[in-house]
Amino acid sequence: MSPTQQTTLVTGVAGFIGAAVARELLNGGNRVIGIDSLHTGYRESVPEGVEFIEGDLRFAETLAPLEDTRVDCIMHIAGQSGGEPSYDDPVFDLQANTQSTLLLLLLARQLNCRRFIYASSVSVYGNQAGGEGGLEEQACPAPQSLYGVGKLASEHYMRLYAEQFGMNCISLRLFNIYGPGQNLANLRQGMISIYLAQALAERHIHVKGSSERFRDFVHIDDAVRAFDMARTASLSGYSVFNVCSGVATTVEQVVELVRDALPFDVSVEYSGATPGDVFGWRGNPRQFQEAVGWKAKKALDAGVKHMVDWALGQKELN
Amino acid sequence: MSPTQQTTLVTGVAGFIGAAVARELLNGGNRVIGIDSLHTGYRESVPEGVEFIEGDLRFAETLAPLEDTRVDCIMHIAGQSGGEPSYDDPVFDLQANTQSTLLLLLLARQLNCRRFIYASSVSVYGNQAGGEGGLEEQACPAPQSLYGVGKLASEHYMRLYAEQFGMNCISLRLFNIYGPGQNLANLRQGMISIYLAQALAERHIHVKGSSERFRDFVHIDDAVRAFDMARTASLSGYSVFNVCSGVATTVEQVVELVRDALPFDVSVEYSGATPGDVFGWRGNPRQFQEAVGWKAKKALDAGVKHMVDWALGQKELN
Repeated sequence: MSPTQQTTLVTGVAGFIGAAVARELLNGGNRVIGIDSLHTGYRESVPEGVEFIEGDLRFAETLAPLEDTRVDCIMHIAGQSGGEPSYDDPVFDLQANTQSTLLLLLLARQLNCRRFIYASSVSVYGNQAGGEGGLEEQACPAPQSLYGVGKLASEHYMRLYAEQFGMNCISLRLFNIYGPGQNLANLRQGMISIYLAQALAERHIHVKGSSERFRDFVHIDDAVRAFDMARTASLSGYSVFNVCSGVATTVEQVVELVRDALPFDVSVEYSGATPGDVFGWRGNPRQFQEAVGWKAKKALDAGVKHMVDWALGQKELN
Repeated sequence: MSPTQQTTLVTGVAGFIGAAVARELLNGGNRVIGIDSLHTGYRESVPEGVEFIEGDLRFAETLAPLEDTRVDCIMHIAGQSGGEPSYDDPVFDLQANTQSTLLLLLLARQLNCRRFIYASSVSVYGNQAGGEGGLEEQACPAPQSLYGVGKLASEHYMRLYAEQFGMNCISLRLFNIYGPGQNLANLRQGMISIYLAQALAERHIHVKGSSERFRDFVHIDDAVRAFDMARTASLSGYSVFNVCSGVATTVEQVVELVRDALPFDVSVEYSGATPGDVFGWRGNPRQFQEAVGWKAKKALDAGVKHMVDWALGQKELN
């Protein structure tokens, strides 16, 4: 095996990001063991070639089959993935997003797995604007959702496992990831996918909150490269990086991109609000670029067009 | 009922701090419902007059009997209480210290309970020295133990419940609480009680770590007043306060106070270290004093003497 060909455990392998990351790993000739509870993911989304374990990572039993397996890298991508839904069942959110991380860190120590990469979130920052260049990793986290609290606790656990047990832990703070493969049936997660799903179903987009709010969007292909580059980068101890473009796009701009890419007219309404919503997030991508060489490449207008075309194709299939 | 006479739910009511807080509430004419799992506390430590529920706060079922009870204030003091033991079973620590907080916050919302007071810890700060006046509440937390991560997550949850649901949450960051009632059989928790228990059993104190490390000690009577004053203080939203003296005492100084108070000779050895141990903690008590009027009153030399006399009395009883 070349140094880049490894056995990687990917959690959330039936989900939007997990499946895409697993596909890339398989393309690179790696062995991929994948876990998913199939609570929100679909069995048919798990890429062919993945050695699949169906199991819920809230429970230690799920990891028992791996106790004698050589694993070079764990990519923990599974979890409850939205701020708003974290209020439906806060204990579920904590177990799915934080207890699962602890269980996987315990497994990593036991297996002497050298690298642990985590799908953290911009949500750990909470409602803060950051400096002129956008949010930096050193900002003091102040999550504004239960979801963000659980993600932040996972990060702290990783830091301690790195500092105290010599593990090599990388937390990737994902900003707004979008693109083909996102679950258009889930109307509570993923800003672009929510608007697109609404537009496809109703030819109408209802935005809950101000049109001037802004986000930092990253295409799924760029996110996949972030995980893959983190896997092979020369890093030790604990690292935390923004996976962001550095570009702020307003909600209105993104809504217009979706409308422009669709072959029919779509009406738009701005009303209401989402509790605990954050006004604006823009990340500073400098640190990840300097340490690992990663940079977002896909422009948002082309990316949205790409996603809309995919979604229209999906719709025709159904 | 006078405004200070209320029904208070005290968790950890069989423990060192919980039992003392409950006793003070009962003395003030309040109704006290107490919960304890009796994992580390003793049934006979629960003060007479407490309406006692034996139950484990990791599980929602434990709170089911309270669903129709009027509760004015919840004091969440139960939990796994040490940094070092949090590594024995990290998932237990997370459930006992963070999941329990979430379950109690959910209960508080359901019961329309107006005040939620939490026994947080200096551990949330991690290894930082603070300014000239000691650690201030605004410092960015960076826990240095799994225990501290769980305590910090509880604080974030409380902040969100206060900000988003109008609850009134007070997090008390307890520094080193000591005094009569501390469990001398637990040799992994409570610096003074560990040294005292060693001295009583072996006439020898083995200090794991440097004699120059320092802590900020608070007598149990002062800690009890902190909970009681937080209960009746005019505060809204989320507050976080140090419960500290503002005085740094080195490990060597505290060991000498214990030796001086004992009627027999005790040898001392400094060797080894505790993983993840923090060099020094001293808090700034100003904010709690300004907002609530609390101030530590008991001097450490008198307090240690008081505790040693109590421990000698206990020993005679056994």
